[in-house]
Amino acid sequence: MTRRGELILVPNTLDFGAPGPVPDLQDVLPLGVIRRAAALQHWVAENAKTTRAFLKRVDAVVPLSQPLQTLDIVELPRPQKGLRHGAASNLEALLAPALQGHDIGLISEAGLPAVADPGAALVQAAHAAGITVLALPGPSSLLLALAASGLNGQSFAFVGYLPVDASERGARIRELEALSRRAGQTQLMIETPYRNAAFMAALLAHLQGNTRVSVSCGLTLRSGFTRTDTVDRWKARPASLPADVPVVFSLLAG
Amino acid sequence: MTRRGELILVPNTLDFGAPGPVPDLQDVLPLGVIRRAAALQHWVAENAKTTRAFLKRVDAVVPLSQPLQTLDIVELPRPQKGLRHGAASNLEALLAPALQGHDIGLISEAGLPAVADPGAALVQAAHAAGITVLALPGPSSLLLALAASGLNGQSFAFVGYLPVDASERGARIRELEALSRRAGQTQLMIETPYRNAAFMAALLAHLQGNTRVSVSCGLTLRSGFTRTDTVDRWKARPASLPADVPVVFSLLAG
Repeated sequence: MTRRGELILVPNTLDFGAPGPVPDLQDVLPLGVIRRAAALQHWVAENAKTTRAFLKRVDAVVPLSQPLQTLDIVELPRPQKGLRHGAASNLEALLAPALQGHDIGLISEAGLPAVADPGAALVQAAHAAGITVLALPGPSSLLLALAASGLNGQSFAFVGYLPVDASERGARIRELEALSRRAGQTQLMIETPYRNAAFMAALLAHLQGNTRVSVSCGLTLRSGFTRTDTVDRWKARPASLPADVPVVFSLLAG
Repeated sequence: MTRRGELILVPNTLDFGAPGPVPDLQDVLPLGVIRRAAALQHWVAENAKTTRAFLKRVDAVVPLSQPLQTLDIVELPRPQKGLRHGAASNLEALLAPALQGHDIGLISEAGLPAVADPGAALVQAAHAAGITVLALPGPSSLLLALAASGLNGQSFAFVGYLPVDASERGARIRELEALSRRAGQTQLMIETPYRNAAFMAALLAHLQGNTRVSVSCGLTLRSGFTRTDTVDRWKARPASLPADVPVVFSLLAG
């Protein structure tokens, strides 16, 4: 029987789409991870184009085991609502190289795959098929934001995107504040960058004055910063948030 | 006016206390982070002894800027219940080097500081004192476990340790399962290693058969593994968990 390949979760950098200079790959990824990525011949990616850009950066540190254009890079199918079970068979096809003995890299557009992106379904399919899953260490914007926030890091939740509709969003913000107060739990959220300023305005409009809000912009970028303040102090000294860089928002009820 | 120093959150490896060989530092930390750590002269640490062990590993890759024994390493005061506000003045004293223009490294025993450890209070004090906080990228056992679990990575919560008392623990497990079902949210937990097996038994005793449980042992270690299965399948094919290695447990209601 052939040795099975593994599903290797390869972290990407956090500078996806960022304007200006990006950090050196060795400032954000361990050399061991770069070496491992350079050796992989089969990839499943959230986006093939950005994966090729990532692999060019890898190649500049550790030469790829074979030319970039000969690598097998398959895109993860976009998740379709109501098709969670129907999609499983497509995912099994993506795992075929592992059944033939080859390791497969899973990579997202930024940070750890299968966290805040659609990759978890493939990881689930790998477990179901008896394929070993190995997550390599790398940057996570959510946890870097949490660490830098000074908010409660012993109980926290990531809740993804909030509703776009203004009244639904307001209700959800108040719900998260109530949950945070009850459980003493930091709540982390993300937003599409061009809506960063509107999202911050909604937080300040709906949260109570003594709730603390933290904003982390451009993590791992030279221009990045984290600011944590109460809602009252954010109102007294507003910040202008970039519209082209991902921001992680977090709150902890006072 | 002197330029203020920054509070730099330096990630540690995840092999704290692990038996057997530990990974090469460059397999788990970016070279840029190792360089940054080698340059710091002032440290606040969860544990001074393990910090010195970490700095010896750093020194073997990038020589320290000054001899290890001349570095200023101060331990973070142990958090005392009911003294959250009284403790703040001690924390300000720890930040004195930053006010004098020196960067300070904050480091925990494993992974990112201020996540699942008492460091957040110092980060909060830094924000209050107007000191810039910078989190450097590194491994987080919680997020590596989440990524490797295949459970929902778009909504998840870390809830820390569960009560030790058996009936309180059972009630809390059922509460987390109900929360997971209602919000579709993965719940992550940790336990003191010698209680790993007892904790797993409690999960299997209190959760419903179709709830998925994931166990990640010894992340970044050669002996590490992640297994995700339903409660029914865990019962049919039990695993023996190590008593000397940290485990991250996670659950997602079926």
